[in-house]
Amino acid sequence: MQIQSKHYHTIWVKGDRSSIVQIIDQRKLPFEFIIRDLESPADCFGAIRDMAVRGAPLIGVTAAFGMYLALFHLEGKNPEVFLAETADYLKSARPTAVNLAFAIDEMLEFMLQNLNDEAIMLKTLDRANALKELEIGFSEKIGEFGLEIIEKIYQEKREPVNILTHCNAGWLACIDWGTATAPIYKAHQKGIPLHVWVDETRPRNQGARLTAFELGEEGVPHTVIADNTGGHLMQHGMVDVVIVGSDRTTVTGDVANKIGTYLKALAAKDNGVPFYVALPSTSFDWNMEDGVAEIPIEEREAAEVTDIEGWSGATHQSVRLIPENSRAANYGFDVTPARLVTGLITERGICKANKQDILNLFPEKKK
Amino acid sequence: MQIQSKHYHTIWVKGDRSSIVQIIDQRKLPFEFIIRDLESPADCFGAIRDMAVRGAPLIGVTAAFGMYLALFHLEGKNPEVFLAETADYLKSARPTAVNLAFAIDEMLEFMLQNLNDEAIMLKTLDRANALKELEIGFSEKIGEFGLEIIEKIYQEKREPVNILTHCNAGWLACIDWGTATAPIYKAHQKGIPLHVWVDETRPRNQGARLTAFELGEEGVPHTVIADNTGGHLMQHGMVDVVIVGSDRTTVTGDVANKIGTYLKALAAKDNGVPFYVALPSTSFDWNMEDGVAEIPIEEREAAEVTDIEGWSGATHQSVRLIPENSRAANYGFDVTPARLVTGLITERGICKANKQDILNLFPEKKK
Repeated sequence: MQIQSKHYHTIWVKGDRSSIVQIIDQRKLPFEFIIRDLESPADCFGAIRDMAVRGAPLIGVTAAFGMYLALFHLEGKNPEVFLAETADYLKSARPTAVNLAFAIDEMLEFMLQNLNDEAIMLKTLDRANALKELEIGFSEKIGEFGLEIIEKIYQEKREPVNILTHCNAGWLACIDWGTATAPIYKAHQKGIPLHVWVDETRPRNQGARLTAFELGEEGVPHTVIADNTGGHLMQHGMVDVVIVGSDRTTVTGDVANKIGTYLKALAAKDNGVPFYVALPSTSFDWNMEDGVAEIPIEEREAAEVTDIEGWSGATHQSVRLIPENSRAANYGFDVTPARLVTGLITERGICKANKQDILNLFPEKKK
Repeated sequence: MQIQSKHYHTIWVKGDRSSIVQIIDQRKLPFEFIIRDLESPADCFGAIRDMAVRGAPLIGVTAAFGMYLALFHLEGKNPEVFLAETADYLKSARPTAVNLAFAIDEMLEFMLQNLNDEAIMLKTLDRANALKELEIGFSEKIGEFGLEIIEKIYQEKREPVNILTHCNAGWLACIDWGTATAPIYKAHQKGIPLHVWVDETRPRNQGARLTAFELGEEGVPHTVIADNTGGHLMQHGMVDVVIVGSDRTTVTGDVANKIGTYLKALAAKDNGVPFYVALPSTSFDWNMEDGVAEIPIEEREAAEVTDIEGWSGATHQSVRLIPENSRAANYGFDVTPARLVTGLITERGICKANKQDILNLFPEKKK
């Protein structure tokens, strides 16, 4: 998608220097646009853990490139042991998103099979790039299927469609297009009038910072709101549809997504507003049946709650929000039970959030 | 309650200089403790509108003192006209809380009846102070009734009771004790172990700033959380009871309170967590039957969403949170339908949130 009218992906290999991977560092957006070099698995681990890159599809692809970069650090090591250790290391960067493990396992298996191939470096790079292209393709298909939902609402309403989204499941969370935002961009490009309510998404404000930035750069009308606001809007008919992303969705349709998503799903249910989750198949956990009980929920530093960063004149600055002696807790995700989800928008189409319908769409996952 | 181990009310008349009313200016708490003089109805209007004072009971009492201060500005005016105009003016400071109109109407009626009394000044001051004492008494009774709820949970659980609250319905929102916090303080003073989850309450962060400050000064264990967090906590048994305040409650039990309250009520319902609203009878709107349709919801400046104030080194500072070209919307309250409310904690006891039970507790309001 566009930043200052130039097309970007969130991650790419730098020119011919194929030992350098570059990312958009998302930590200072929208205040500063920084491109950062990653040259080792440790760089990739740090970028994921510190959220220079974030979003389930993107952290998966970043880890895939981290496996590729491991090839430049093999000297004096047992390749099989080192690659397996690197895989475990990268998986430990963040616990909730399932894409991370998926991408790393794909890469590790491929690399172990091709260890003795002279062209392993090029082949591994191709494999990482293929995973990247896979995610782009998934996002674009999600956009096309989700477009139908927005288009149908517009045809009935004949007024701008109001979409609420939480956090950033935008192209910055993916490689291009996004998951929750892909249908929005497709609809906008098709000329369907729409307006997006952007939850600011405390504590890290991915909505206020990233989703608002993305939508602004693409010219999509939007309004930032406090996370507390969505229920009121839905009570008053000001939201036509909610679309969010997912960090991990169980095979039964329970959805882990950014903390607070569950509250919006409850409000949507209470007000008859359709609640859709957009996700590529790489975000499904095919082995998990009970999301609330089983999905690991990341706890992050209290500092993300006690302090906030914003723009002050020409610099960004962090300010403290709570009394010196008060504690804070910071849970990164919550789980929305399948019963609150109207449908899942995947690269193969839209299905209901239950095991049968999910497996009908992905029959190869049936056991 | 206590600030730095000294007992305060939120509003009082200054010494013998009875033409000066003093308030704790809540806008810079917890970073700065400022006491401000109010000397006219305009000062009181400004303090209410700009939220130097806030909370339904406190803005009612502040307006009552505003009516009293009008007596010092009668010169050259028709008293009846001026007092009626002042009443309308003060009522217009904020739209949602019903206490404001209640206190002003009480004062206006009293003052018009005593216009020709030589001792009107003293009598009016007594009347304003009586309204203040009434609110203190209401808060303390709410505390005693609410204590029973907490005590019962503790007797069953024998572990610290986890209470979640939203916004500041603390003593800073009242005169003393608070509404939602009164049961907490009573339980804490009685030695019942408890812990409070404090919603930060974007956009103005009354939870992170005021409730955390209050609880800290009183030595009550507490943890500040992003507003998005409560649903996750309730899903995992980490909240025993929710207690919030109210700016206006219909005679049918619909509760207007700070934006986001409705989302917590939905989560409580979904997880079988009791959801109580603590309010004095002055916060009931005896004429209103449908909260969602009828209660006016204040829209405030977008700047409260786009910017946030915090502490940076030795000064407080405001920083911008969203891209320069993005818009924001700011609704101050939402309405929680009575069906989601376990009970109302009033100065006369606890009742269910329906017309019959409310009117049984306040039979004089039956029409």
